[in-house]
Amino acid sequence: MKTRITELLGIEHPILLSGMSWISVPSMVAAVSNAGGLGLLATGVLDTEQTRKAVREIRELTDKPFGANVSLLFPGAAQNAQVLLEEKVPVINFSLGKGDWIVQAAHEYGGKVLATVTNLRHARRAQEYGCDAVIATGNEAAAHGEQVTTFCLVPSLASNLDIPVIAAGGVGDGRGLAAALALGAEGVAMGTRFMTTVESPLHENYKRLSLEKDVYDTLYSKRFDGLWCRVLDTEGARKAIRRGLNPIQMLKAIPNSRSIAQMLKLPYWKLFIGVLASGWENAKQLAYMANAFKLIRIATEDGDTVNGVLPVGQVTGLLHDIPTVKEVIERTVKEAEEVIRRLNDKVG
Amino acid sequence: MKTRITELLGIEHPILLSGMSWISVPSMVAAVSNAGGLGLLATGVLDTEQTRKAVREIRELTDKPFGANVSLLFPGAAQNAQVLLEEKVPVINFSLGKGDWIVQAAHEYGGKVLATVTNLRHARRAQEYGCDAVIATGNEAAAHGEQVTTFCLVPSLASNLDIPVIAAGGVGDGRGLAAALALGAEGVAMGTRFMTTVESPLHENYKRLSLEKDVYDTLYSKRFDGLWCRVLDTEGARKAIRRGLNPIQMLKAIPNSRSIAQMLKLPYWKLFIGVLASGWENAKQLAYMANAFKLIRIATEDGDTVNGVLPVGQVTGLLHDIPTVKEVIERTVKEAEEVIRRLNDKVG
Repeated sequence: MKTRITELLGIEHPILLSGMSWISVPSMVAAVSNAGGLGLLATGVLDTEQTRKAVREIRELTDKPFGANVSLLFPGAAQNAQVLLEEKVPVINFSLGKGDWIVQAAHEYGGKVLATVTNLRHARRAQEYGCDAVIATGNEAAAHGEQVTTFCLVPSLASNLDIPVIAAGGVGDGRGLAAALALGAEGVAMGTRFMTTVESPLHENYKRLSLEKDVYDTLYSKRFDGLWCRVLDTEGARKAIRRGLNPIQMLKAIPNSRSIAQMLKLPYWKLFIGVLASGWENAKQLAYMANAFKLIRIATEDGDTVNGVLPVGQVTGLLHDIPTVKEVIERTVKEAEEVIRRLNDKVG
Repeated sequence: MKTRITELLGIEHPILLSGMSWISVPSMVAAVSNAGGLGLLATGVLDTEQTRKAVREIRELTDKPFGANVSLLFPGAAQNAQVLLEEKVPVINFSLGKGDWIVQAAHEYGGKVLATVTNLRHARRAQEYGCDAVIATGNEAAAHGEQVTTFCLVPSLASNLDIPVIAAGGVGDGRGLAAALALGAEGVAMGTRFMTTVESPLHENYKRLSLEKDVYDTLYSKRFDGLWCRVLDTEGARKAIRRGLNPIQMLKAIPNSRSIAQMLKLPYWKLFIGVLASGWENAKQLAYMANAFKLIRIATEDGDTVNGVLPVGQVTGLLHDIPTVKEVIERTVKEAEEVIRRLNDKVG
C-alpha cells in the first residue's frame, strides 16, 4: 500500500510504532521497521549516552528506516534530540515543544521530522517549521490525546494542512487503518496494539490485562500526570487519579525526580534548579510527571497491577491476542485492503 | 450504495437524519427521506396528538420510508410510541429505556426498530429484544454520547452483534461515511450536519455560529442535563454547566416542567406525582432535563446565543456552508464513493 507517508519515509506499509517509554526499545523499533513499518524509539527515559547506544543498537538490528521521539517538555530532551541529530537518525518525532531547530538540523542530512499534535494551531506551526508530517493524537489514544476524537481531528487537519497526517488513536486493526485513510490520513501510528505483542517488553501481567479489558475500560483525567491523559482502568490508576497532586504527592515528587535525574544522568541540583527556574506551573507539571513516570515504570517493567499505571488507548478493547509484530503489521495491511476492496464492490 | 441498512430500511443511501427536538420536524424528515435517506421525526417535545399530526404531515410530504424516535426516559414517551405503532410508522427508533414491546408491536405490521446505544451491553440487549439494527452514539456526537469514540465503538459493536450498526457521531461528509463503513458500520446517522441546512428550522444565529466554530468548540459535561452531553461552546452553555443543578435550579425546574407538561398536554399533577414516584435519582434527572429543554428551545427556536444551549457534535468544526438537505446527501455519497475508489487504486 503506497501513500504519501510510505513515500516520505521510504517504508513499505503506512504503519508507525508510537514511541512509548519502556516499550519502544531498540528491539521493538527494529521489529517494526524490519516488518516494513517504522519503529520510533522512545528517548524520554534515556540519558544521552543511552540514547546514542540505543540508536546504534537499532542500526545493528535493522538496515530499514527507523525513528526516535523526544518530548521537549522533559528535562534532558533537547540533549537527546542533539544526539539523534548527531547520529543522523532518519526520522525524528518531537512533541510538547518548539522543534524548529530539530527540523533545520535534520533536513541538513536528509532526515525527516514528524511533530505530534492534538490541534490545528500546533499542526500549522509544525508545518511552518518545515516538519514533513504530523502525527494527530485523537481523544481515544493512549496518554496525551485532547478532546477531539480521531474521527473529527484527522479530517480537520487533512483539510487544512499541505503536509500529510498520520492518525494516532483508535487504530488497532485493518478496519482502523482503512478508516484513517478514508478520513484523509496517509498513515497510522499504533501504540496500544504493538504493546501487546510477543516482542513487546510490556510485563506479562499487563499484556494479559489488555486482552481482558474492553473499550470502556480506560480512564481519562488531568489528575494523573497533569495533562489530559488516558490510562488503563485499574485499581492503581483510580488511586493515582483520586490523589492527584496534593502536598504529600508534591513531596514525593522530590525523590521521584531524583531518580529521574539519576535515570537521565543529569546532576540533580541542575535538574532541580532548572525546574524551579522554569516557573511554578512548569515545576508543578514536572512534579506530576515525576510521580507518573514511577507508576508507569512499575507497571510496564514490574507488572504491578495494584499500584502501577499503564497508558493505553480505548482500542485496548479490540485486542484479542498476542501476535508477533510482523503478524500485526501484515494482517493489519491485509485486512485494510480487504475492507477497501469490499467497499469498492459496494460502490460498484 | 447498497448496504445492509439500505436493504433493511428500503432506502437509497445509508444516511439517517437523527431525531433532534425542534429540528427533526416533519418538513426536515420528509426532505431527508425524499432525498433517498431516512428522516427520523423527534417526538420528545410533542404530545400524542401532535405526534399523530406530525406523522400524517410527513406522509403528505413523502411516500418514501421514514421514522420517528422516542426517548423512553421522558414522560409521555411511551404514549407517543403507542401512537407511532397505531400509525404504523415504518421505522421506530428508541433510546434510554426498554423497548421490547415496541419491537413486538412494530414487527407485527412489518415496521423496523432501531435502538440507540452507547455500549455493547445495551446493544446486545437490543438485539435480544429483536431490534433490527442499532445506532451507535460515539463520544464526539451531539448530546448523549459516552466516553467511547466512534472509532472504537463501531468496530467493537460490529464485531459482537449480528444486527447491523449505524454510526452516529463525527460524520459530516463523505470521508466520514466511508470511514464509518470501513469500521464496520452499515450506515450513518447525521445530526449536526443536517442542522445547518437550508431546510433546517434551526435559528439563523446558530446556523451562522455552527459555521464559525471549530472541532474544539464543544463542551462535554454531565452538568448540563444530568447525562454526559455535548453542546456548542457558548457563553450560555458555560453558564448552564457552571450552575449545574443547584437548589435554585431545582426550583426553576418546577415552572419548566410545568411548561413541559403543557407542551406534552399531560395533566401537571400527574406528571409531578409520576416523577416523584419514580424515585429521587429519576426526579433529579428529569428536573435537570426540564431546565435543559428550555435552554435548547430558546437556542433552536429563538436563536438566543447568550442564554440558549445547542447540542452539537465535534463535527460542527467540519461544516463550511449551508447546503440543502438533498445536496448534503448527494455530495456525502459521492465523496464517499470517490474516497473508496481512490483507496482502492492505492491497494491496486
